Amino acid sequence: MTYLTFLNDRASVRTFDPNYEISDKEIQEMIQSAANAPSSNNFQPWKIIAVKHKEKQDVLRTFAYGQKQVKDASVVFIIFGDKTLYDADKLMDFNIERGTLTEADRSYKMTRVSTYLNLHPEDIGIEGLKFDSGLFSMNLMHVVRAFGYDSVPMIGVDFDKIKTYLDIPANYQAMLLLPVGKALKPGYPHVRYHLDEFFTLIK
Amino acid sequence: MTYLTFLNDRASVRTFDPNYEISDKEIQEMIQSAANAPSSNNFQPWKIIAVKHKEKQDVLRTFAYGQKQVKDASVVFIIFGDKTLYDADKLMDFNIERGTLTEADRSYKMTRVSTYLNLHPEDIGIEGLKFDSGLFSMNLMHVVRAFGYDSVPMIGVDFDKIKTYLDIPANYQAMLLLPVGKALKPGYPHVRYHLDEFFTLIK
Repeated sequence: MTYLTFLNDRASVRTFDPNYEISDKEIQEMIQSAANAPSSNNFQPWKIIAVKHKEKQDVLRTFAYGQKQVKDASVVFIIFGDKTLYDADKLMDFNIERGTLTEADRSYKMTRVSTYLNLHPEDIGIEGLKFDSGLFSMNLMHVVRAFGYDSVPMIGVDFDKIKTYLDIPANYQAMLLLPVGKALKPGYPHVRYHLDEFFTLIK
Repeated sequence: MTYLTFLNDRASVRTFDPNYEISDKEIQEMIQSAANAPSSNNFQPWKIIAVKHKEKQDVLRTFAYGQKQVKDASVVFIIFGDKTLYDADKLMDFNIERGTLTEADRSYKMTRVSTYLNLHPEDIGIEGLKFDSGLFSMNLMHVVRAFGYDSVPMIGVDFDKIKTYLDIPANYQAMLLLPVGKALKPGYPHVRYHLDEFFTLIK
């Protein structure tokens, strides 16, 4: 299978093997890989919760229109954005620690990032979180398939109740619920607008 | 190369072969594949402009801090969100035309989507556009690599000037500038927080 076919074959899967277990190690590897997504200034403003517990998944299901894939999934990821991670000082510390920034360059780089953020305050508010979380989420959906699993992205769920139930910190802003498991049935074929409706080539 | 390696190897490339041409056909295929990204209710609220014209790219470069990858790229994609595409009637028409919805089910489905949107108005405003555009953009970055190319995502550019210069409709909300081309140098290695800083497993 070519890489393009691999990418194009991602589809929302709604029927998972309820008895299939995904190891903690694989779950961790999937999340670490998904975090290779780019983000504004490499702020990486995401927090991820994974629920791998059938009784808890059964409760989560009640906050998600009762959809059975939430319980049948081997693991349910919840992707959050966290504005507190749009912190230029923390980013500088991190880069110095990793050797990608020197102390000598810190002040220059800090000024550059701060100037940018003053010009684009929306990029470190909810709009920035939504875009960066979208990048992370799409990457995660492909990564889970590279491990042989599938997923179904869900946004229309009761995130307030989910946050209360799982005791999630207030600074975590919910973006997506993503049940992941071993597919028993393939997803539906893609139904998309033709290129002519949304694309213009200027040459 | 495994699929996981393929995904993990995506990195921002800043040095493109300025003489490499990507055919119109490949550009179109890349965009049609990228549109297989999921979106809220499958609204597909994106519009894409591709600029494949060296003089125009040289002007775009002046709106992007003079960064040379904008000119050297074989094509520059601009990803927009378009709120007018959050239109439940249009979505129903589209699904009926494609045979994924029957006239008999239209009213039921319309009520379901409308109820959802009334509960989640943010999903059809700028927040929804940002998230859905993030999904599309990440998918596009992987798709271009499946074609043997690379990209560099840029958000801190002067989109107002770009829109004026290219005479872009007002309902197109700019999300990302994405120069794409044949890499002459690989991107930098990923520098990311360790899992422990952003991930919690509940089991």
